[in-house]
Amino acid sequence: MSNNYEAAIQYAQQHHQEFLDELKEFASIPSISPRPEHKEDVKRAGEWVAGRLRRLGMKNVTLYPTAGHPVVYGEWLEAGKDQPTVLVYGHYDVQPPEPLELWESGAFEPTVRGDNLYGRGVSDMKGQVTAYLDAIESIVKTGKLPVNLKFLIEGEEEIGSPSLDQFIPEHKDLLASDIALNADTGMISAEIPTITYALRGLAYYEVRIYGPDHDLHSGSFGGVVHNPAQVLCDLVSAMHDQEGRVTLPGFYDKVRPLGAEERTELARLPMDEAFYKQLSGAPNLWGEKGFTPVERTGGRPTLEVNGLLSGYTGVGAKTVLPAYAMAKISMRLVPDQSPDEVYQQLKHFLETHAPNTVRWEIIDLAGGPASISDRSSAAVQAMSKALEMAWGKRPVFKREGGSVPVVSQFKNYLGIEAVNTGFGLIDDKAHSPNEKLNLPTWYRGIESLIYFFYNLAA
Amino acid sequence: MSNNYEAAIQYAQQHHQEFLDELKEFASIPSISPRPEHKEDVKRAGEWVAGRLRRLGMKNVTLYPTAGHPVVYGEWLEAGKDQPTVLVYGHYDVQPPEPLELWESGAFEPTVRGDNLYGRGVSDMKGQVTAYLDAIESIVKTGKLPVNLKFLIEGEEEIGSPSLDQFIPEHKDLLASDIALNADTGMISAEIPTITYALRGLAYYEVRIYGPDHDLHSGSFGGVVHNPAQVLCDLVSAMHDQEGRVTLPGFYDKVRPLGAEERTELARLPMDEAFYKQLSGAPNLWGEKGFTPVERTGGRPTLEVNGLLSGYTGVGAKTVLPAYAMAKISMRLVPDQSPDEVYQQLKHFLETHAPNTVRWEIIDLAGGPASISDRSSAAVQAMSKALEMAWGKRPVFKREGGSVPVVSQFKNYLGIEAVNTGFGLIDDKAHSPNEKLNLPTWYRGIESLIYFFYNLAA
Repeated sequence: MSNNYEAAIQYAQQHHQEFLDELKEFASIPSISPRPEHKEDVKRAGEWVAGRLRRLGMKNVTLYPTAGHPVVYGEWLEAGKDQPTVLVYGHYDVQPPEPLELWESGAFEPTVRGDNLYGRGVSDMKGQVTAYLDAIESIVKTGKLPVNLKFLIEGEEEIGSPSLDQFIPEHKDLLASDIALNADTGMISAEIPTITYALRGLAYYEVRIYGPDHDLHSGSFGGVVHNPAQVLCDLVSAMHDQEGRVTLPGFYDKVRPLGAEERTELARLPMDEAFYKQLSGAPNLWGEKGFTPVERTGGRPTLEVNGLLSGYTGVGAKTVLPAYAMAKISMRLVPDQSPDEVYQQLKHFLETHAPNTVRWEIIDLAGGPASISDRSSAAVQAMSKALEMAWGKRPVFKREGGSVPVVSQFKNYLGIEAVNTGFGLIDDKAHSPNEKLNLPTWYRGIESLIYFFYNLAA
Repeated sequence: MSNNYEAAIQYAQQHHQEFLDELKEFASIPSISPRPEHKEDVKRAGEWVAGRLRRLGMKNVTLYPTAGHPVVYGEWLEAGKDQPTVLVYGHYDVQPPEPLELWESGAFEPTVRGDNLYGRGVSDMKGQVTAYLDAIESIVKTGKLPVNLKFLIEGEEEIGSPSLDQFIPEHKDLLASDIALNADTGMISAEIPTITYALRGLAYYEVRIYGPDHDLHSGSFGGVVHNPAQVLCDLVSAMHDQEGRVTLPGFYDKVRPLGAEERTELARLPMDEAFYKQLSGAPNLWGEKGFTPVERTGGRPTLEVNGLLSGYTGVGAKTVLPAYAMAKISMRLVPDQSPDEVYQQLKHFLETHAPNTVRWEIIDLAGGPASISDRSSAAVQAMSKALEMAWGKRPVFKREGGSVPVVSQFKNYLGIEAVNTGFGLIDDKAHSPNEKLNLPTWYRGIESLIYFFYNLAA
């Protein structure tokens, strides 16, 4: 570890205005990946990132075309073979800004009010991407990068990263690294630097129940034909027991238990019942008996109904006995569950629970395993120390209930773990009108990234 | 009872072609009540009925305007005060004909092929209405009507008869009668004349379950917020027990049991498991233990899910934890259940079963009690004998699983029972393309109506 970071930190502190101006320029590009009419804007944002990487002295900076939006690659490998290589992950695309009328200033006219910068993507995640770039600028303008870097900045995160699952395995050598850095997970609050060390996996299905071969009159057939909507409800209801546990056979067999030490640490997080109640607006909470809310969302697997559809759903009464009923059902997975095994468990559940009065099928819609980082690894420790240096306090270690497929892909295809952090806050309104970035937090974030690169060096 | 029917029967047998031509003329009018652009056509069909009533010598023939389509009224009260008055019910509107490309001949170009007349409404129920008129013509051309008649022929049956619930109570004196005649219930098969002596009632609700105050990310909140779709499934599933019985508290308290004699008679109907399986295409049947299919559809109450809606129902995966879930739930009622009591039972069920993790409400959408006719009444006996005279065999007595609200309205507002019969067949494709009327059955039906009016006379 070197002490050269002092000049870099000083540089960063003296260039807040320049960093902010560059972020405003970047955030002015409406790189809305779900909208075909913004395809050129998305590409322009990719080129903006590539341009900055080149100006920072990164090598082999390339926009790799994909079936969708391009992947920006760049590298700097001159720190020496004894130094680790960090794969820096980010995305330069953003969510659509609608409803426009709710924005207090233009979604693509980034505007500072108070401590915040407002605009689409400033938190998710253009501000996180420029935080990487600003930290690197601070280092290269005052010294030499202490570690090797590779960049994978994609333009399809907001549409589910469809191209990466092909791009990463096709470019294994190009992307080969020791550790990934992902600033897309955010902080619990501005005063609580956060490392997300676990992300849940996902197994998403559509369960279809078929009864009679056409919609029937509920008067003529009610009482003799088993209603597929009723059968679906019976099946969905049987998927949980009275303790809030999932009843698919073998569902918990591979679940890695939470250790006593980890549970003690999770209990310190300021995310209690009141926190979740307030955030969700639910009258009361619910979940698996024997676990706290933060354990249930991060450390335990769950099964959710994401959608239900059957029969007549319009206004008023229609007396149909429907031929068909459908549920979207997804499981959030923890280590070491696998989506393939969960599919077999769901299939086995239906084979044993579905009555012979209906036919059924399962459509496999999406899936990926959970990921977990070794909290004692050198990279995580380097980030932990970096956050402590920037905030003056030790970070919290958090499990995240959601899934970031790219983290699993790095693990699967490149065999590397990710350090997940970020400087977005829970009230940043990512995906909503008036998205904001808290600037004091962001400046600290840039400094913590400078510390991280130095801390990581051998 | 008079023997004068012989001349009338002879007249009917000699005028098959004329009756058919008149029906073809009537069925050529596209009186599609659900379609605003056909409003004038619907009225024209009402005027066609009124014109025929006038030509048959009926008095005070009037088109009563309503908020929707007009009600045709007419009467002939010269049979004497000692003779019963029959309120003849029918409707002159029809269902939309789409999909048009599946019709082998034009929906409103009635065409004979083989023994059948094809066209929209020929079975449901323009052919039934002209059967009344043809029977009356046969009588008045050869003698004198033996009973008093009133006609209530509406133009809104296919949209749920919204105006009758106001029209009937507002015209109690005008409509006062001893018995109603309703030919809108049909036959089991061409060789089995049928009297429907019981119709189930209906209680139709929308149950809404509200959880969090907005749609949530299923990763971040799965495991702490109770999913309203899951709660809805739990509730719907709990509404039946393992025996297929409805679990609403008190649901069976007022159910009139099926007597041994009635069960023996129902067992004679050619409507066994194979019949319902073939008709529905369901892999296997289902229903309340201890009762036969025909008992379950006609003589026992049921609870049906008519619709389900929650969360994301489009193509692919969306990881939402929905804020809201809805089920359309309806009960088919038998005597002496009341829709009001069933509402209280459903409310009580939700009060005791819904968890405190959600809010809920019930929307009352439609309802009406069941109806049952005294099979030993003079009118039913007159119809039974009439059908036996026309077919050479005794009719079967059937309970119908569906609901005909007008039959309940006659009972409620006018205090009279209905004799429910008709000459439509189960494979007539009412409401579907290529609707047909079996002409030999229809001609027999006209004769049976002649016999009925004579049999009913004191």
